[in-house]
Amino acid sequence: MVDSCQTCDQCHAHEEQYCRDGITGTYGSPDRITGEPNQGGYSKHIVVREEFVVRVSDKLDLSKAAPILCAGITTYSPLKKWNVKKGTRVGVVGLGGLGHMGVKLAVAMGAEVTVISRSKSKENEAKKIGATGILSSTDEEAMNNSASTFDLILDTVPVKHDFNTYTPLLDIDGTLVIVGQIGLMEEPLTAPLVMGRRRIAGSLIGGIKETQEVLDFCAEHGIHPDCEIITPEEINDAWEKLEKSNPAHRFVIDISKLSL
Amino acid sequence: MVDSCQTCDQCHAHEEQYCRDGITGTYGSPDRITGEPNQGGYSKHIVVREEFVVRVSDKLDLSKAAPILCAGITTYSPLKKWNVKKGTRVGVVGLGGLGHMGVKLAVAMGAEVTVISRSKSKENEAKKIGATGILSSTDEEAMNNSASTFDLILDTVPVKHDFNTYTPLLDIDGTLVIVGQIGLMEEPLTAPLVMGRRRIAGSLIGGIKETQEVLDFCAEHGIHPDCEIITPEEINDAWEKLEKSNPAHRFVIDISKLSL
Repeated sequence: MVDSCQTCDQCHAHEEQYCRDGITGTYGSPDRITGEPNQGGYSKHIVVREEFVVRVSDKLDLSKAAPILCAGITTYSPLKKWNVKKGTRVGVVGLGGLGHMGVKLAVAMGAEVTVISRSKSKENEAKKIGATGILSSTDEEAMNNSASTFDLILDTVPVKHDFNTYTPLLDIDGTLVIVGQIGLMEEPLTAPLVMGRRRIAGSLIGGIKETQEVLDFCAEHGIHPDCEIITPEEINDAWEKLEKSNPAHRFVIDISKLSL
Repeated sequence: MVDSCQTCDQCHAHEEQYCRDGITGTYGSPDRITGEPNQGGYSKHIVVREEFVVRVSDKLDLSKAAPILCAGITTYSPLKKWNVKKGTRVGVVGLGGLGHMGVKLAVAMGAEVTVISRSKSKENEAKKIGATGILSSTDEEAMNNSASTFDLILDTVPVKHDFNTYTPLLDIDGTLVIVGQIGLMEEPLTAPLVMGRRRIAGSLIGGIKETQEVLDFCAEHGIHPDCEIITPEEINDAWEKLEKSNPAHRFVIDISKLSL
């Protein structure tokens, strides 16, 4: 990313990657001034706008700094966004370019990091960079034993695959973050998610305290469901009505009319 | 829901619906003491444990209070969890039993609510309960014009359907919450999401400020990507290596070796 509109809400919020006008990529993107496709950074010198210049600390080996600008930031950003800290249980799916940086960064944040991979062939490598080990996604027993044990899973796999393999590993309120499948044509679900940090979640009823809260909220605001009161004898008719149309209301059975 | 273990973290957090030991449903669930399948509430009297008793305000019409305990809480809980308040742009997919309660509750919270439905046939009904109108999901132009305009979408549709229809409607960081597809066998993605309020998200690189942050973080913690330095002449060999194996590192081109 080498340019953005600099005027939209996202640019002002330091989230240029979600620029409303679209970012200028590092290569093959039309330059915002000349319109010519740009040529990337494969050169000894490059002219860039100052807002897109970053400092490289003397403590960093310059020859290894460049991938931090891609694999590094791509994994760092969701780790920060989802508040990874000491003790957070992080899974990293795939131990490639993104995955190995995800592990190192999460470990440095104090997380308990597990690599999730089809086989255990990279276990030594995973441990060497601070992961506790590898969970093999093809080992059904291990996967079952690891159900609900992760707060955050970084999915770095760049090819189409089944998210259902990994979602049961998440604890309640846990999040699987897709960072590898950018704009993958065979998986249309992921493009809008990745390109706008959009999310899909599930939600199941609510707790008893919150159930009391919604009852009180409805009383306070005069909210009632649209209901039709029926007697127990009318249940079968109500069922037929429901099948035929789709009334935006509920049938409520007046059980005091129960004749037994 | 009429019982839970009362001892796990979720029960202690007033989230009995996610009880680690599983909830006791209102009907057809084994009773936690006798083991017999329970019979639901279709009776004049019922014995329940006191933790699962709720107060019904005198302000509520008792004949219409019961669905608040299902359609009401199911839509209220995610509206609260995702912090719906004055001005939040909420979409509600489907105007049925859950949908109409979702609209009423979100409107009472001050949200701008739009119903999303295949046709506009229920537009009057939607407006009557406070929605601004209906966005027809089969109207391609209207859908394109509404891209990135919702903070939260409640998806109340109980049958299998394509989430890709709705995710582009979400603004950046927006969430689609599935509340209708509980345990739907044809859609294995949704069961783990709904049953544990789990989430799937996407994330795209990061902003420049955060990119500076990760560079400094790596410098501070001595983190480097695993890199192999190559000359420009070695690019094709590196490409072949990448195709053959999957080294957990990046190739970095030493551009000072460029001979032109």
